Amino acid sequence: MDEPILQPGQRLARGVCRLLRSHNFATLDEVTPRPGLRVDVMALGAKGEIWVVECKSSRADYTSDRKWEGYLEWCDRFFWAVPPEFPTEILPPDHGLIVADDFFGEIVTMAPAHPLTGPRRKAVTLKFARMAALRHHALRDPRP
Amino acid sequence: MDEPILQPGQRLARGVCRLLRSHNFATLDEVTPRPGLRVDVMALGAKGEIWVVECKSSRADYTSDRKWEGYLEWCDRFFWAVPPEFPTEILPPDHGLIVADDFFGEIVTMAPAHPLTGPRRKAVTLKFARMAALRHHALRDPRP
Repeated sequence: MDEPILQPGQRLARGVCRLLRSHNFATLDEVTPRPGLRVDVMALGAKGEIWVVECKSSRADYTSDRKWEGYLEWCDRFFWAVPPEFPTEILPPDHGLIVADDFFGEIVTMAPAHPLTGPRRKAVTLKFARMAALRHHALRDPRP
Repeated sequence: MDEPILQPGQRLARGVCRLLRSHNFATLDEVTPRPGLRVDVMALGAKGEIWVVECKSSRADYTSDRKWEGYLEWCDRFFWAVPPEFPTEILPPDHGLIVADDFFGEIVTMAPAHPLTGPRRKAVTLKFARMAALRHHALRDPRP
């Protein structure tokens, strides 16, 4: 299979997903919890924990994002993921921090937990489940 | 990508998954709701409905299955899926019936609804979600 050409943020997301997989989280990139809002990585833990990770490859990538505060209400914990050279002092505090590259990463600061309500968790989990299965199906059986 | 060699039941499952996709269900094959119990196809509707479809390619395939009654407690609706030439009179009544081939299919009899309890639905949806995302990840990024 040809290697797709990935943007810097997508390569970072790949390393983040490998990291989260090693923490027993199942991940999905570019999830749209509601129309107009797309998170870089959503991750689902064995107990149903929902994490969102926003990947910022550079200062410019971060400063051009006006939507990130809208992501908080869709997860139990919110993380920034940045490359090692990123100036982390420009990030707002009070969230998690992952330092990653194209291949792997590390959770530097655990995000504080702000648990979702039951109905919101149910809705996000269902959306995640259907999106994951539909994408898996499309990869496995691309013909229809 | 090379075409995998599929068994008759798996080819039937492919047609079933395409059919269910056309009914706006997200599908996953070979789901293990608990250890030792593997259903051929699990499908998740937009409102969270959970369907299970057992694919039987022949009379022998059906008569060798001693586990199917164990599947009922993991879904809201249970269907048999069989090829057009299958002797459907040997199937136990009171379930749904899909007639399918390798490419598509048809819901001949809608299965009666036996809604799952809330905790069971939550647990099955979470398992489905994680399994779908992990398999998707493994296809997208098989290297780690």
